[in-house]
Amino acid sequence: TPESAERTAVPGVATGLAVTGAGGDVLFVEASLAERDTGGAGLVLTGQLGDVMKESAQIALSYLRSRGPELGFPVDGLADRAVHVHVPAGAVPKDGPSAGITMTTALASLLSGRPVRADVAMTGEVSLTGRVLPIGGVKQKLLAAHRAGITTVLLPQRNEPDLDGVPESVREALEIHLVGDVREVLDLALQPATAAAAA
Amino acid sequence: TPESAERTAVPGVATGLAVTGAGGDVLFVEASLAERDTGGAGLVLTGQLGDVMKESAQIALSYLRSRGPELGFPVDGLADRAVHVHVPAGAVPKDGPSAGITMTTALASLLSGRPVRADVAMTGEVSLTGRVLPIGGVKQKLLAAHRAGITTVLLPQRNEPDLDGVPESVREALEIHLVGDVREVLDLALQPATAAAAA
Amino acid sequence: TPESAERTAVPGVATGLAVTGAGGDVLFVEASLAERDTGGAGLVLTGQLGDVMKESAQIALSYLRSRGPELGFPVDGLADRAVHVHVPAGAVPKDGPSAGITMTTALASLLSGRPVRADVAMTGEVSLTGRVLPIGGVKQKLLAAHRAGITTVLLPQRNEPDLDGVPESVREALEIHLVGDVREVLDLALQPATAAAAA
Amino acid sequence: TPESAERTAVPGVATGLAVTGAGGDVLFVEASLAERDTGGAGLVLTGQLGDVMKESAQIALSYLRSRGPELGFPVDGLADRAVHVHVPAGAVPKDGPSAGITMTTALASLLSGRPVRADVAMTGEVSLTGRVLPIGGVKQKLLAAHRAGITTVLLPQRNEPDLDGVPESVREALEIHLVGDVREVLDLALQPATAAAAA
Amino acid sequence: TPESAERTAVPGVATGLAVTGAGGDVLFVEASLAERDTGGAGLVLTGQLGDVMKESAQIALSYLRSRGPELGFPVDGLADRAVHVHVPAGAVPKDGPSAGITMTTALASLLSGRPVRADVAMTGEVSLTGRVLPIGGVKQKLLAAHRAGITTVLLPQRNEPDLDGVPESVREALEIHLVGDVREVLDLALQPATAAAAA
Amino acid sequence: TPESAERTAVPGVATGLAVTGAGGDVLFVEASLAERDTGGAGLVLTGQLGDVMKESAQIALSYLRSRGPELGFPVDGLADRAVHVHVPAGAVPKDGPSAGITMTTALASLLSGRPVRADVAMTGEVSLTGRVLPIGGVKQKLLAAHRAGITTVLLPQRNEPDLDGVPESVREALEIHLVGDVREVLDLALQPATAAAAA
Ligand SMILES: [Ca+2]
Ligand SMILES: [Ca+2]
Ligand SMILES: [Ca+2]
Ligand SMILES: [Ca+2]
Ligand SMILES: [Ca+2]
Ligand SMILES: [Ca+2]
Ligand SMILES: [Ca+2]
Ligand SMILES: [Ca+2]
Ligand SMILES: [Ca+2]
Ligand SMILES: [Ca+2]
Ligand SMILES: [Ca+2]
Ligand SMILES: [Ca+2]
Repeated sequence: TPESAERTAVPGVATGLAVTGAGGDVLFVEASLAERDTGGAGLVLTGQLGDVMKESAQIALSYLRSRGPELGFPVDGLADRAVHVHVPAGAVPKDGPSAGITMTTALASLLSGRPVRADVAMTGEVSLTGRVLPIGGVKQKLLAAHRAGITTVLLPQRNEPDLDGVPESVREALEIHLVGDVREVLDLALQPATAAAAA
Repeated sequence: TPESAERTAVPGVATGLAVTGAGGDVLFVEASLAERDTGGAGLVLTGQLGDVMKESAQIALSYLRSRGPELGFPVDGLADRAVHVHVPAGAVPKDGPSAGITMTTALASLLSGRPVRADVAMTGEVSLTGRVLPIGGVKQKLLAAHRAGITTVLLPQRNEPDLDGVPESVREALEIHLVGDVREVLDLALQPATAAAAA
Repeated sequence: TPESAERTAVPGVATGLAVTGAGGDVLFVEASLAERDTGGAGLVLTGQLGDVMKESAQIALSYLRSRGPELGFPVDGLADRAVHVHVPAGAVPKDGPSAGITMTTALASLLSGRPVRADVAMTGEVSLTGRVLPIGGVKQKLLAAHRAGITTVLLPQRNEPDLDGVPESVREALEIHLVGDVREVLDLALQPATAAAAA
Repeated sequence: TPESAERTAVPGVATGLAVTGAGGDVLFVEASLAERDTGGAGLVLTGQLGDVMKESAQIALSYLRSRGPELGFPVDGLADRAVHVHVPAGAVPKDGPSAGITMTTALASLLSGRPVRADVAMTGEVSLTGRVLPIGGVKQKLLAAHRAGITTVLLPQRNEPDLDGVPESVREALEIHLVGDVREVLDLALQPATAAAAA
Repeated sequence: TPESAERTAVPGVATGLAVTGAGGDVLFVEASLAERDTGGAGLVLTGQLGDVMKESAQIALSYLRSRGPELGFPVDGLADRAVHVHVPAGAVPKDGPSAGITMTTALASLLSGRPVRADVAMTGEVSLTGRVLPIGGVKQKLLAAHRAGITTVLLPQRNEPDLDGVPESVREALEIHLVGDVREVLDLALQPATAAAAA
Repeated sequence: TPESAERTAVPGVATGLAVTGAGGDVLFVEASLAERDTGGAGLVLTGQLGDVMKESAQIALSYLRSRGPELGFPVDGLADRAVHVHVPAGAVPKDGPSAGITMTTALASLLSGRPVRADVAMTGEVSLTGRVLPIGGVKQKLLAAHRAGITTVLLPQRNEPDLDGVPESVREALEIHLVGDVREVLDLALQPATAAAAA
């Protein structure tokens, strides 16, 4: 998929799946970290995000701030530097909790410098302890992923029953991973550190 | 109960009981503490919490900030680090004071590293001095706890009369503790430090 | 009165009197001070307090911050530590200026470690210089105090005419002090330091 | 006047004049300064003040912060200490710019320790450079001052024409000073430092 | 003009021109700077200013913060000291961008200690780079300036065509300067440093 | 074009293109940086900008804070100094994401001291990773640029199809660059450092 390949070429970008008025769509979560001593601090959220989606970003960041070190994601770089999470397109309102694991992945990619795999898209609410909670719109999201050339999709374990409603051709074409903990998401979606170093 | 066992496996998560439009339900209060020098500070509250429930979280935190040391909960770890309290599911609005003791327990578990017992659920308003005040929906909450496989429930002492309205089979199946002070809650709900060390 | 005895057993809690939709009632103002270096700061107000009641708490705190030292209440403990004032029940909206002297008493008790006398309840607006200003609902409040087993009530001097409307049996049963300055309130309501040390 | 004498006995309180729904009335502006290192900072405003009246308090404080030293009012005590301005009664909404000179006087009294003369009341908008600007309700305000036993009133120079509408008996009974600059107000209203020291 | 002479006698005050419901009027922009270590910080805006007018004040301050040093206006005095901009009368709502150059002039006067010429009034929007942009109400504003005894008016260059609508007698009586950059405004409106020293 | 030449003569100003109620128009994004120790901090946004346009400014600043150093734009000057972005005219409400690359260019010009080319105008949303995203109103914007004497226009690559709707005479007259990454924008729009030094 040319678009997700271009978008995720740099660390800090992950591919998500959303339900829109016109079916499903691919979206990109972008994260950046201000250089030290450039005057920023805290978490900046843009992309016309609604309350629930803003909370998802806070959960993703808190998860990494508390669990990052034991998972191998350096978080000491976060002190006194602004973290910015943006979800294009800038003028389109977005809401809901289902970008939780995508936000966590984008931030973990940013912190580790490991790019996200371009062929992977994901959807799932994340809890503060890293549990992956079920979301809606599985069928539309898988159709959208397939249309966009995505080959691997990460879905919440508890959404397994929803796969019955997805056309068999789409299920066949996609490698679908059912995940219960965001650590599985990070293992599957982030390129190994060595690949990143070579990138 | 598989779900509460999974959820409360790590310190910082306590099982509560809520009244919803469709009877009662089990909910999980999750608390996390940012690693030192990761740029956060203060209390972050997520889960679409209403005003009263946000105040409950502030009361729970203030209780531990002032009484924690004498009760054996270390609070010096709270300086300059963000505390985050989240109540999944992220998109479901929640309100009311009855998660007060659950929030206190989740935070005390987080501070002490002692996990919460997986078979225990609780409901009760907490005051700033640790008094446990009565709540509503006792019947629905006990039915929900029973359905979810919970075996021990902590209720406010002043809700004792409401037990008359609970089916005898449910009362029999559950070990119900009536509590007047949140210290009793912490004694009953937190695993001993040694068990936690072994976990 | 068992309830106010339990409630005011620790320093930082004072018994007030309020007018509610159903006559008068006893309420408890609880104050706490975060331990040093536990990440809090400023004044936290909970209990669904309205604008006027929140201002009362600010006035009570400012009074002690400016006059505390000359009255013997140590205020240096307030630097960089969060003060929390809560008025249970958490879900019941409350407003009005008449808890002013109760809030001042709760904070003075907290700062000095001197518990408030369990048999004393009070009502009165407080000004920034410590003047006690008149309030409404004297009759309902005295009836409520009497019902709750309170034996001593502190009222604003300027409410003296309202005592005419109170049943003689209630007036007889209560020891009523008419006060013009909050220093009189503190003298009457706080247990002496030696009693506190012995408590 | 017993009330203004009691009220203004301590530095930091000045007597103002207001128009209310029921004619004119005397009001008291109270100012306090937190002791050093008691956790407060900035300007706290209470008394259900409207936007315009809050701005008056900011103007009064800024005037003293910039002009205080040249007028002999020490302002170095303001660093890192909360200034609180309150206007009882706490539950009565108040608005308008005409308490400007009263607020400036209360703050100047607080900073200098010089009490305000108990027989003086005042009304007038103040500008940031200390100009006294005209206000409304001169007749009602003078009648109220007279009723309250006030003997000296400070009015804006530009309100001189409004004196024609005031009953001659009231004008005779009062010593009325027309002022154009807030320095004249401070000279007339504050007791000399020596008197204050003796107080 | 007695009023503008009195008003602008101290540095930090500039005379502007406004359109009101009743034609045009003269207004005064007052600026003050808190003494060092008096507890203030940032920009305080009063006078019931609307959003656009508040933004004008921010633009004026930012212009001087970035360009002040190269224009000879000392800005190091701004660190950690509150800047206050007030536009009397305090209770009259005001809005619009046309006080931009007046605000810049008041602030530049304050920083340099050079008083503004009492015979000069001005109107014009200012951009962040100091461009003077056109405004409305030229005719009413010039009539008001003339009525108030002003003899010199500064107008945006791009408002030159609007002069056709102004009565010839007024144009003759006034010295009108058309300005394109705020530096021209400052040159024309501020008294030379030597004159200020002598003042 | 005289206007854009005057406007962009100093670093920190870039020429954008907007759709207004009356077709298209040229707009100028102005950026300034407060001198060190002049009391400002953070990002100040003025010009009656709507939510989406404010977010564009935050994205532009975050892009430079994180990517600036590797692109040769010094960002260490941003610590503890206020950045101000203004879009005249001050009273005209503006919104939308299409000024994103213009804002990035203005800020990059400010940081580098390299002025923006006066003959260049641009339109395009920018993402946090510097992707240039498509915008609306291509035809009106190109007509406006042509009318204003602009000779070079930068458009998002993904808007190429919209060029079909633009009159051939306008397309011929303009040098149109289709850009996919904001680095291309900066290369095309900023004058080389040597030219800037000579300016
Ligand atoms: Ca919402
Ligand atoms: Ca498959
Ligand atoms: Ca509410
Ligand atoms: Ca049982
Ligand atoms: Ca209210
Ligand atoms: Ca009695
Ligand atoms: Ca108002
Ligand atoms: Ca007289
Ligand atoms: Ca507006
Ligand atoms: Ca002329
Ligand atoms: Ca909007
Ligand atoms: Ca061409």
